[in-house]
Amino acid sequence: MSRPAEEFISRRMASHRPAPLRKYGPWLRGPNIISFAGGLPDPEFFDHRGLREAYDHVLDTDPGRALQYANGEGEPDLREQAARMLTEEGYATEPADLMITTGSQQGISLIGTVLIDPGDVILVESPTYMSAVRAFGLSGATMISVETDLDGIVPDDLQAKINQYQPKLVYLIPTFQNPTGITIPAERRDAIAEVISRNDILLVEDDPYSELRFFGESLPPLASDPRLEGRAILLSTLSKVLAPGVRIGWLRAPAALKPLFVSAKQAADMHTSAIDQMAAAYYADQYMHDQHRLDPVRAAYRERCECMGSWIDKLFPEGTRRTYPDGGMFIWVGLPDGYDTDQLLGPAIESGVTFLPGSSFYADNPVRSNFRLSFCTHGTEKIEEGVKRLAAAIESL
Amino acid sequence: MSRPAEEFISRRMASHRPAPLRKYGPWLRGPNIISFAGGLPDPEFFDHRGLREAYDHVLDTDPGRALQYANGEGEPDLREQAARMLTEEGYATEPADLMITTGSQQGISLIGTVLIDPGDVILVESPTYMSAVRAFGLSGATMISVETDLDGIVPDDLQAKINQYQPKLVYLIPTFQNPTGITIPAERRDAIAEVISRNDILLVEDDPYSELRFFGESLPPLASDPRLEGRAILLSTLSKVLAPGVRIGWLRAPAALKPLFVSAKQAADMHTSAIDQMAAAYYADQYMHDQHRLDPVRAAYRERCECMGSWIDKLFPEGTRRTYPDGGMFIWVGLPDGYDTDQLLGPAIESGVTFLPGSSFYADNPVRSNFRLSFCTHGTEKIEEGVKRLAAAIESL
Repeated sequence: MSRPAEEFISRRMASHRPAPLRKYGPWLRGPNIISFAGGLPDPEFFDHRGLREAYDHVLDTDPGRALQYANGEGEPDLREQAARMLTEEGYATEPADLMITTGSQQGISLIGTVLIDPGDVILVESPTYMSAVRAFGLSGATMISVETDLDGIVPDDLQAKINQYQPKLVYLIPTFQNPTGITIPAERRDAIAEVISRNDILLVEDDPYSELRFFGESLPPLASDPRLEGRAILLSTLSKVLAPGVRIGWLRAPAALKPLFVSAKQAADMHTSAIDQMAAAYYADQYMHDQHRLDPVRAAYRERCECMGSWIDKLFPEGTRRTYPDGGMFIWVGLPDGYDTDQLLGPAIESGVTFLPGSSFYADNPVRSNFRLSFCTHGTEKIEEGVKRLAAAIESL
Repeated sequence: MSRPAEEFISRRMASHRPAPLRKYGPWLRGPNIISFAGGLPDPEFFDHRGLREAYDHVLDTDPGRALQYANGEGEPDLREQAARMLTEEGYATEPADLMITTGSQQGISLIGTVLIDPGDVILVESPTYMSAVRAFGLSGATMISVETDLDGIVPDDLQAKINQYQPKLVYLIPTFQNPTGITIPAERRDAIAEVISRNDILLVEDDPYSELRFFGESLPPLASDPRLEGRAILLSTLSKVLAPGVRIGWLRAPAALKPLFVSAKQAADMHTSAIDQMAAAYYADQYMHDQHRLDPVRAAYRERCECMGSWIDKLFPEGTRRTYPDGGMFIWVGLPDGYDTDQLLGPAIESGVTFLPGSSFYADNPVRSNFRLSFCTHGTEKIEEGVKRLAAAIESL
């Protein structure tokens, strides 16, 4: 007896849970909607002239390579640029340590493919990045939250959860976390590295935002702690510092694991667009040596973050708490107990503003009074107007 | 007790099996090597001028969209072009039926993610495309070969294997198959569609080569058979008719399954490079309406196929058999019994020519006297020289 296709399809459909904003689909495209939902960089800062030069250069000088099949590991020139950037951030890296991915989302997905067996446990922050939870979930992992305070995951609870669940890996976004904007400070990083190395588990560090720092001193990636050598995987991306549309990220893995990642990458999509890789490598070489290149972006995001924060403080109900990010794209807001931000979404959209409810960001035990606001997409005028609309929607509940 | 990272990594490494040519790595890059191994389109036919125009157009007219995050389903303009092309091939298709993929390899991988549970059986041709076998294998599928003759899989054996294994799906490359170059004729397609629909299983049709026909009349995709409506998934790609480096393919799925594919796609890489999608859409609209556009490629590949075939017939040992493709990129060669083409690879590379041994193409029961030659990469002079080198290497065994 074969397995009937129709019954199988309806069973698969039944277990499908669409993204939270999906059901509002057409509403969200209206010209008057102010979106604080997605983590969309402001396109004003896309250097489309520089990128046009890069694509032209690649197609003029080496079209046969840019348009042909390439190797799964990624273009050597781009890996060289990426290694240079990681080294400058304080994590000594050779091109051979790196594999190019189709955005860092693919890095997450490949970690699921390569490292996860069904039933494996992954420890995550609470809240955490839900597209990671979903991608790991497709590989059969169970995600368990570690207690998280304003300095990141709590080392004692990390140890307790390791004892309880024997996880295979810990997935962290230590710098300007998504969704909270929190950065784990140096001493906490030290304690976390100690627990991870003592227990001989793997760290996956997702680091898309660290270049968008507008306050304080840079910290090297947690993965660069010497105690984590051989057990840390770092994901980076050009999405937030160049443009997300080109889908370029990289994965730094221990030498022993890298061939497995390259095999999984080849099975996933053969390789990342060769023309995009070569254009990105050219662009990085021409324009990304300048450490001040992102200063205008950082200044704008800082202004927007402060603007959004101050309007929240002015207009949201008494008892509201929020984070004070030193960089990145997001503020995390906690309304007083009793609010349910899933219920807020409908009225907010009717008022012309969107956000992502807190329930979208927890592997378990969602705190429904929390929600995420992105401050990077719009200028301060729209931010002011959007926060006002949101405050009105909250009041209307 | 946690699971020690070091032990885990060495266990994963031990089960890793690199691609067959990997161990010869540096050898293969020599300038004097003639490669019949990869299915690399001849870069001479890449229209880099047209593509430069396309990238310029996109970056000049709509940079904010080309460089921003996009939706997982794919750019509407590109889905419209793809739907038009499929409809012209005889498979009436709306843009809403399609999802853009990062090459059709990603379509295969997502089918694994969405449809396969560990232990599921997939029926395949013998021989078949091994990167599909590897990608399905990562989702925990077991691949079982169906008896295959010069007209494709044998319907009676398909029914027998369905009875024996209760497969979830059948994966076929019905037109200019990889690796054999065989095309399933109309009557055999009819019989296969009948067996698939009668047993209510799913068909995955991989169709990267059908535009490269140089003999005979076009056949519509097997998936377009009305009996397969709601149970067929078709994969196509621009890799063979535009350029593989841009990694653009699409997946046509039943309406009920499409949301699952979009979710899996978002988890895999968010979306395919927006700039590549928009450039491909522009290019398709400007240049791909012309049905004769590929005539020079078809004429060249036909000449190369005939050249390669005739030198094989002249120089290879008595008792050698081979296929006579009507299109595509590959000739499949069977040396007389007793030859082991894995053993041939070393001497061939020493003589300055590469190919892929038959053992790379079987889900089970490899026929080691067979091997695959690609005729698309080089002109006839190099083909003649390469086949002569190969004949000498065979003689040296």
